[in-house]
Amino acid sequence: MSKSRRSERMVVITRLLTQRPRNLFSLNYFSESFSAAKSTISEDLTIMRDACHKWGLGEVVTIPGAAGGVKFVPKQNRRETEELIEYLQQEIARGDRILPGGYLYMADLSYNPQMISRVGQLFATIFSDLKPDYIVTVETKGIPLALMTANAFNVPLVIIRANNKVTEGSAVSINYVSGSTQRIQSMSLARRAIPANAKVIIIDDFMKAGGTARGMHDLLAEFNAQVLATGVMVATSEPQEKLVANYVSILDLISVDTVGKQIEVAPGSWY
Amino acid sequence: MSKSRRSERMVVITRLLTQRPRNLFSLNYFSESFSAAKSTISEDLTIMRDACHKWGLGEVVTIPGAAGGVKFVPKQNRRETEELIEYLQQEIARGDRILPGGYLYMADLSYNPQMISRVGQLFATIFSDLKPDYIVTVETKGIPLALMTANAFNVPLVIIRANNKVTEGSAVSINYVSGSTQRIQSMSLARRAIPANAKVIIIDDFMKAGGTARGMHDLLAEFNAQVLATGVMVATSEPQEKLVANYVSILDLISVDTVGKQIEVAPGSWY
Repeated sequence: MSKSRRSERMVVITRLLTQRPRNLFSLNYFSESFSAAKSTISEDLTIMRDACHKWGLGEVVTIPGAAGGVKFVPKQNRRETEELIEYLQQEIARGDRILPGGYLYMADLSYNPQMISRVGQLFATIFSDLKPDYIVTVETKGIPLALMTANAFNVPLVIIRANNKVTEGSAVSINYVSGSTQRIQSMSLARRAIPANAKVIIIDDFMKAGGTARGMHDLLAEFNAQVLATGVMVATSEPQEKLVANYVSILDLISVDTVGKQIEVAPGSWY
Repeated sequence: MSKSRRSERMVVITRLLTQRPRNLFSLNYFSESFSAAKSTISEDLTIMRDACHKWGLGEVVTIPGAAGGVKFVPKQNRRETEELIEYLQQEIARGDRILPGGYLYMADLSYNPQMISRVGQLFATIFSDLKPDYIVTVETKGIPLALMTANAFNVPLVIIRANNKVTEGSAVSINYVSGSTQRIQSMSLARRAIPANAKVIIIDDFMKAGGTARGMHDLLAEFNAQVLATGVMVATSEPQEKLVANYVSILDLISVDTVGKQIEVAPGSWY
């Protein structure tokens, strides 16, 4: 086996495993693709495992036996996480985000694929001990983040709609009180979207009083779903009492000074 | 330089370049990270380029000069594309997708991150000669696909909303006639979302008469945006005359027999 041959295999194996996180590939798949002995592939995977470990890219997990294989579990290392938090903190604190009413314009962050993919990977790292069947969000702004989190977990995304749609078939709807505006709103989830007793993680972009997250919990209870965790990118520090008991926020929004155009942001409590 | 050392670098370089498609990394970045000579890194990149070329993973593009560097442009090879089309065709043709009114339930496909990521990569491959500044979609079901397309292009996603939201600031709204239901609806795009004269590609999950796509074109015209292309995952073959002139559909929905539970699907015209 020549030197370049191994290097070539490392490129192809790394690309495949990292592109499809938590997907199990059999060793046969690789040994057939490369016409290489299984022992050679095992050596390749050991090199990849060590490299991923040394550089903090994630874990290469080998599952022995006939139904076994290898999969890549992405992890964000401390340095990457620190860089991400620092970047988000600086970006969110930009005074020109302030909209009338003290709202913050955040679509440029929430809709930036490669940035939001890193936040999704951070959630998958924070919640790495959990084994969700689904990632659940409510339309619209949290969808990119929830999708990237679902991608890192290799599970389907479920999107709760504001209204029942003909393209989703029969659905369960509930009314909920938006915690901050005290308005009654409704949300709806297609019956087909999740089976009973599913384990889910709720992901959203923003939490103020937690009324929307509370509504999602209540709607999911109609499906007998078990909510393993709730994660939001940004939570406001006021009101301190949220309508959901436990949640993880990547960043906390301490204050918004609409007159002086000052925004104060701190890393969330998990940090 | 030992054999394992190069293999290790190949893992780290491949992971970084492929995870952040079309992102330019300087050779200095790698030579500093690895404490390796630039000539060594160049050799690594040549190996990666050759492997990606041979295995049809995409292109490793080196840009010379002081502002230069290296980036990875993902491409889907013919075999992967064929597998994807075949899989989608079989999946969409499943009779249990049929909902009252002849609609098809497709959320399980549209919200499957790793599957929809491959469709996004296919769009980035089909449109690889174009240089969009933004990928534009309208809420809700097309968002995952549009995000994954934006990720492959390394450009921001723009989401047109059904209603103007306080969290998006001042916005431009238009009314449009949904081509199939003939109902008047509105869509709205935040002023901040795109600058004037941007080049965009429109991506959506489904097209029937093209009324929504027409509305998106009209709304984008208010921003003087140049629509380079329109791509949809599934287009119905009827009506044949759509309200937008040119579009690419991955799959065409030929017929839905609601009584016999038969769905006929064919690869789109681009294929």
